[in-house]
Amino acid sequence: MAKKNEQYVTHIADIRTDFPQWYTDVVRQSEMVDYGPVKGTMVIRPYGYAMWENIQRELDARFKATGHKNAYFPLFIPESYLKKEAEHVEGFAPEVAWVTHGGGEELAERLCVRPTSETIICAMYAKWIQSYRDLPVLLNQWCNVVRWEKTTRPFLRTSEFLWQEGHTVHESDEEAQRETLRMLEVYREFSENVLAIPMVTGRKTDKEKFAGAVATYTIEALMQDGKALQSGTSHNLGQHFAKVFNITFQNREGREEFGYQTSWGVSTRLIGALVMVHGDQRGLVLPPMVAPLQAVVVPVAAHKGGVTEACERVREQLEGAGIRVLLDDRDTLSPGWKFNEWELKGVPLRIEIGPRDIESGQALTMRRDTLTKSPMPLDGIAEAVSARLSEIQRDMLKKAQDYLHNHFCDAADLDAMGAALDAGKGYIRAMWCGDRACEDAVKDRFAASARCMPFDQTPVGDRCVVCGKPADTLVYWARAY
Amino acid sequence: MAKKNEQYVTHIADIRTDFPQWYTDVVRQSEMVDYGPVKGTMVIRPYGYAMWENIQRELDARFKATGHKNAYFPLFIPESYLKKEAEHVEGFAPEVAWVTHGGGEELAERLCVRPTSETIICAMYAKWIQSYRDLPVLLNQWCNVVRWEKTTRPFLRTSEFLWQEGHTVHESDEEAQRETLRMLEVYREFSENVLAIPMVTGRKTDKEKFAGAVATYTIEALMQDGKALQSGTSHNLGQHFAKVFNITFQNREGREEFGYQTSWGVSTRLIGALVMVHGDQRGLVLPPMVAPLQAVVVPVAAHKGGVTEACERVREQLEGAGIRVLLDDRDTLSPGWKFNEWELKGVPLRIEIGPRDIESGQALTMRRDTLTKSPMPLDGIAEAVSARLSEIQRDMLKKAQDYLHNHFCDAADLDAMGAALDAGKGYIRAMWCGDRACEDAVKDRFAASARCMPFDQTPVGDRCVVCGKPADTLVYWARAY
Repeated sequence: MAKKNEQYVTHIADIRTDFPQWYTDVVRQSEMVDYGPVKGTMVIRPYGYAMWENIQRELDARFKATGHKNAYFPLFIPESYLKKEAEHVEGFAPEVAWVTHGGGEELAERLCVRPTSETIICAMYAKWIQSYRDLPVLLNQWCNVVRWEKTTRPFLRTSEFLWQEGHTVHESDEEAQRETLRMLEVYREFSENVLAIPMVTGRKTDKEKFAGAVATYTIEALMQDGKALQSGTSHNLGQHFAKVFNITFQNREGREEFGYQTSWGVSTRLIGALVMVHGDQRGLVLPPMVAPLQAVVVPVAAHKGGVTEACERVREQLEGAGIRVLLDDRDTLSPGWKFNEWELKGVPLRIEIGPRDIESGQALTMRRDTLTKSPMPLDGIAEAVSARLSEIQRDMLKKAQDYLHNHFCDAADLDAMGAALDAGKGYIRAMWCGDRACEDAVKDRFAASARCMPFDQTPVGDRCVVCGKPADTLVYWARAY
Repeated sequence: MAKKNEQYVTHIADIRTDFPQWYTDVVRQSEMVDYGPVKGTMVIRPYGYAMWENIQRELDARFKATGHKNAYFPLFIPESYLKKEAEHVEGFAPEVAWVTHGGGEELAERLCVRPTSETIICAMYAKWIQSYRDLPVLLNQWCNVVRWEKTTRPFLRTSEFLWQEGHTVHESDEEAQRETLRMLEVYREFSENVLAIPMVTGRKTDKEKFAGAVATYTIEALMQDGKALQSGTSHNLGQHFAKVFNITFQNREGREEFGYQTSWGVSTRLIGALVMVHGDQRGLVLPPMVAPLQAVVVPVAAHKGGVTEACERVREQLEGAGIRVLLDDRDTLSPGWKFNEWELKGVPLRIEIGPRDIESGQALTMRRDTLTKSPMPLDGIAEAVSARLSEIQRDMLKKAQDYLHNHFCDAADLDAMGAALDAGKGYIRAMWCGDRACEDAVKDRFAASARCMPFDQTPVGDRCVVCGKPADTLVYWARAY
C-alpha cells in the first residue's frame, strides 16, 4: 500500500511543462475516473462521482427555487425526429450512436441514442400544451447523453457523459429570452459560489451556437494553461423547434401561436474545470463546497495513549457540525503517506493530532490551497474548521478571479493576437466585423475561436482584428478545450 | 380547464372489474407518465418523477448509511463482455438493444446497451482489486437500463427504466451472503416504512433466479387484484463473475483467491407497486413519505375577505414545518374540481378553508386514504398536520398488511391451488419437491409461478402440490406481473 501511495505523487507530470499529462495523471491517480472498455468512455469512480453529487444537489436546489421540475424522457429517439429540424440534424447526426437491433430483431426505424433531447421533448410538449394556461412549462432532466467523439479526455470530452438539460416553453419571445438569461445567471452564480470558478459570460457567434438555436449564451472558464473551457450553455430556441414539432397554444387573445422555447445544460465537464482551474503540482485542490471530504483527521503516533480517542472526538464534533470529515485511522500507513494521498485528492483542510498537540490542547492544520500550516485549539474546533473552510472557499475564488483578470489582453491585429495566444495570455479582446470568414481565419491560423461576445460591448477599437474593416462587435477569443 | 378535470374522474375504469385498465387510466390521467414515441418506452412526467426522487433520496441515505458509495459506469458494454458468463448472456441477450454504428461508421464490435451492469463493472473491479485490503468494495449506481420487452406497461415493464444497481465484492462467501441479505432487509424496511408496502421475502427458485447468480432473494408485493409484483432483488453471485472476469485478490493468508460478489437492485417499478397497492376508484392514494405533495390547501369562496390570506398563512406554516404543501389558488376552477383533481393525484391530506372556517378558527380536512373529513384548529395547524400525516402513513401500512395477511391460503393439490388462484386469494402456500418440471406445470396450467421460498420454512404438508411425491420445500405461489 505504501508503495502504491508513493507512486501517486511521484508520477504526476509537471503542471508547468505538460499540463495535459498533468491533468490526466491527476484525475486518474486521485481515483476520480478510469477509462471504460469502449474507446472514449469513462468510469466515474466514487471520488469523482461524489463531486457530481454535490454539483447536482446545489444546482437542483437552484432549478427548483426558480420553479423548475424534474422529469425523465426516453434515451432512444427515432431517426425521423432528429431529422425534423434541419440545423439540428446537421449539427448532431455526425456524432450519433445508432441502435439498429432490439429484442433479437432488426428495427424498422433505427434509433438515435440521445445526444441531447430537444426533439423527443418537443414531440411530447406538442401533445401536452394547448393553452397559455399550460405555460410556462419548466422542466429539467438529469441523464446520460452520447456523442461519438474522435478525440476524448476524461470529463472534458467523452462519448458518454452525464448532464442536466432544461427545456422550457413560454408564451412570448421576451419571456423565453428572460428565461435563457436567468438560467445563464444561475450557472454563473453557482460556478462562482460553489465551484469557486469565475466565469466569462456572453453570447456565442452564429458559428459557435447550438444547432437549432436562435441564440446561445455561454459561461466560459479559463484553465491554468490559458485555454478556455465552455462550461455551460443556455439557448433561446425561438420558435424553430415549435414549428417543426407543432407546439402550438391558444394565446390570451384566443389565437393559435407557436411556443417560444429555451434549453440549457451543464455536464460532468464542470468536474474537469474544477481540476484545471484549482489544481497544483501535488494534485487536486478542491473548493470546500464541492469537495467530497472537506477535512481529514490524521493521527500522529496513533499508538500513543489518547491519540486515537482525541482524533475520534474531533471527527465526531466536525460531523456533528455538518462537515464532511474522515478520520484516516488506517494502521498500515504512515502519516506522511496519508498527507501525500489527501493532498493529491485535494481535501481542503488537514488536521493532524499527536501526543504533543493533545498536551497543548490544539491540533495542527494545513490548508490545501495555500499549503500553510497553523495550530487550532481543540476547544471549539468545529466552529473554527467551519470558519476556515469558508475562508478557503473565498480565497480560492479570489485567486481564480485574480488569475482571470490577469489573463485578458487587447489585440488590434492578427500578429498581436497570435503573439498573445502563444504567450498564454488567455482571452484576447478584439473587434470583429461579423463575417464568418474572419472567424474561420482565426481558427485556421491560431486554432483559437470566438468564445463569446461579452454582454459589456465597450469597444477596444473600431476595426476587425482580421480584415481591418469597420467592426463594432467585441469578441473574447481564446484557444479552448 | 373545468371540462378537462371532469374527464379525469369520469374516465377511470372500474377498479373491481377492470384492474389493468384502471391502472393505465390512473397513471396517465394523474400525469405521472405518458407513452414515449418508441414502442414500450415511457416518459416519466414531473408528478411521477417526484415520487422517484423521494424514493431515491430515502434509499440513497440507507445505502450510504450501510457504507456504500455511488459511481457511474458506461452505458455501452462490448458484446464480448456480455458473452463471458454463459448463464448471464443466455438470460439477457434476447432482450438487448444493440448499437452497431457510431460517429458515422460501422463499429468493429457491436455494443450492448446495458440491461444490467455486472459484466462491465466486473471488468473494472478486476483492474482495481489486488488485496484483501481493497475489500470490501461497496458501490452503487443510479442509472437507466434497457431491456427490449414484447409486452410493456408504464412503470411495470418498459423497454427502458430507471433503477439503482449495487455491486459489491467481498473476501469470503459468508460476507457476501451477509451483504446479500442485508440489502434485502434494507429494501424490505424501506418498502414498509416509506412506501407503506409490506413485502413477502424469500429466495427465488433456480428457474426464477438472476442469470448468473448463485442465489437470488426477492421482495414481493401483493397488488389489489391478488397478483404479486417482484419489487426488488438481491443476488449472491458467488465467484461466477469473478472467475470469468478474473477478479482476484491476495487473501489474508497470502494466497490468490477469486472475489465473492453480490448485486442488488430496485427500479421505477416500485412506483407501479405504489399505485396498485394503495389506489382506489378515485385514483392514487399516496403514502405521505413518498407523496410529491403531502397536503393541498384549497380556498373556498376565495373572493370573500380574508380567505386567501388565511390560506397563505396556513401554507407558510406547513412549509415552515417541512411539509410538502401546495396552495391551489387557481381562480378559474371551482373547489369541487380541485377536490377531484387532488384526489386523483392522491394527495394525502386536503385542507379546505372558507369564511365560516376562519370565523370558527378552524379548517376542514379530508384524509385521502379514508376519505374522512374532520375539522382542525388553525392554531397550531402545522403540528396537527404533521401528526395526521404520520397517522395516515401508519394506517396505510396497517391496511396493506391486513390485506396481505388475508391473502394467503394453503393448497395440498393442484385443484385447490387453481381454485384459490381463480378466486384471487393471492399467495398460495404449498409444498414443492424441487423438480423444475413441477414448477413448469404450475406455470402452464395456471399462469402462476413460484414467487419465493420464504425464510420461514414451516411446512404446510409433506407432499409436492404438483406430483404428490415427498417434498420439504415451502413455496409461495402466485400469479404475477
